[in-house]
Amino acid sequence: MPIKKLFPFVTADIALFTIDDDTLRVLLVKRANPPAKGAWALPGGAIDPDADASLDEAARRVLSGKTLVDVPFLEQVATFSGAARDPRGWSLSALYYALLPRDQISAVAGRKTEAIAWANAFAADVELAFDHAELLATALEKLRDKVERAALPLHLLPERFTLTELQRTCEIIQGRALDKSSFRRRLKDEPNLIELEGEFLRGAQRPAQLYRAIEGFRF
Amino acid sequence: MPIKKLFPFVTADIALFTIDDDTLRVLLVKRANPPAKGAWALPGGAIDPDADASLDEAARRVLSGKTLVDVPFLEQVATFSGAARDPRGWSLSALYYALLPRDQISAVAGRKTEAIAWANAFAADVELAFDHAELLATALEKLRDKVERAALPLHLLPERFTLTELQRTCEIIQGRALDKSSFRRRLKDEPNLIELEGEFLRGAQRPAQLYRAIEGFRF
Repeated sequence: MPIKKLFPFVTADIALFTIDDDTLRVLLVKRANPPAKGAWALPGGAIDPDADASLDEAARRVLSGKTLVDVPFLEQVATFSGAARDPRGWSLSALYYALLPRDQISAVAGRKTEAIAWANAFAADVELAFDHAELLATALEKLRDKVERAALPLHLLPERFTLTELQRTCEIIQGRALDKSSFRRRLKDEPNLIELEGEFLRGAQRPAQLYRAIEGFRF
Repeated sequence: MPIKKLFPFVTADIALFTIDDDTLRVLLVKRANPPAKGAWALPGGAIDPDADASLDEAARRVLSGKTLVDVPFLEQVATFSGAARDPRGWSLSALYYALLPRDQISAVAGRKTEAIAWANAFAADVELAFDHAELLATALEKLRDKVERAALPLHLLPERFTLTELQRTCEIIQGRALDKSSFRRRLKDEPNLIELEGEFLRGAQRPAQLYRAIEGFRF
C-alpha cells in the first residue's frame, strides 16, 4: 500500500502531571492491546481526522477517552518521529503535557487500558514502552523550565490554596528549596493570583490567607 | 481511500533566518506548483519515510533540496495541524527554524521554486500561503525568546566576529538596544566564545578582538 507509506501513523501522547504525597507524579497506563501489550506507557492514541479539528483536540479527546478527565491545561511539547519508535511503522507522536489539580486525582479512571498508575515523574519504577521514557523526560524538562522562569503551576493546585502550598508545588517541580521571602516578594505583583478576602486556612498554625488563580489563567 | 484519511499529509517547513543589512531576514520561496502556486511561503516539503529517518532529517533534506545549503543549526519549533490549513486535506506541518551565517547567503539558491527572497522577518511585505504567517510568527517568538534568555545566536555570525557584531546581532533579534557594559559583563565567562589570540579586525576604529564559537556549539 504505497499510499500508507507516504502518510505516517500519527498519535497524540500526553504526560499528565499532578502532585500527590509531596511528589510530582505522571499518569501511566498499562496497555491493553498490542503493540507492547501489558507494558506501561503514557496515555495516547491515534488521531482521527474526522473527529479532531487539530492535534490539540486529538490530545484532549484521547486523554479524556482514556482517563475520563478534562484537564484545565494542555500544551504541545514536541513531535517525535521515525521508523524505529513504533513497530507499526514510520510514526509521529505529538507530545502534550497537562496539569491536574490534586483534588481531581480521584476522578481519573482508566478506559481501554489494563490499569493506571501515578508514577514518580522523576523516578518511574517501571520501564516505559516505545520511546516514552524520552517523551516523559522532554515533558518534564519543559515543565521545570517553565516553573524556573517564574511561571506559576496554578493548575496543579486545588481551587483555593495558600502561598505555602504554591511554594511547595514549585519546590517539588524544581527539585530544590526556595527562599520564602524572595518567593513572596516575587508574588507581590503577580497578576494571576487573587487574594480571597476574609478566607483563611485554619489549622494547627496561624490562619493562612487563601488565594485562587484568575479566571482563564494560562500556565 | 479510507486509509488516507487515517494517515494525514505531513510536511516539514523551515523558517531560515539570517541577518543582512542590519535586519533579521527570513527565506521565502515562491511556490512553483499548486496548491497556492505563485504564492510566497516558507520552504517546505512532504516527508519521505523511505528517505528520512526522522522529522529532523526530513527538514534538513527538504531545506537543502530547496536552497542548496546545509545549515549548522536546525531545531523543531512546534507542529501545526488541522483540516483547514492545506487544501490537500487534514495535514501536519512540523515547523523548524534554522540560522544561516550572513557570509553564506550567496550560497542559497532556489530549486523547484519560482523564486526566492529574503524578507524582513518582522515585517514581510508579502502575504504568505497557507498558515505560514502563523508559523513564521511562532518561529520568531522562539528565536527571540532564546536570545532574551541569554542564548548567543552565534550561528548567524561569520566564522570570526567581534563582540560589537555579536551585540548588534542580539539587538536586531531582540528589537532593542542593549547596554554595552552589561552585555560585555555577561560574556565574560561565556564558555561558547573563544578569543582568537592576536587576531583583530582592523578598520577605521581601533583594532577589535576577533572571536569564534567553540566547536560543536549548540544554540
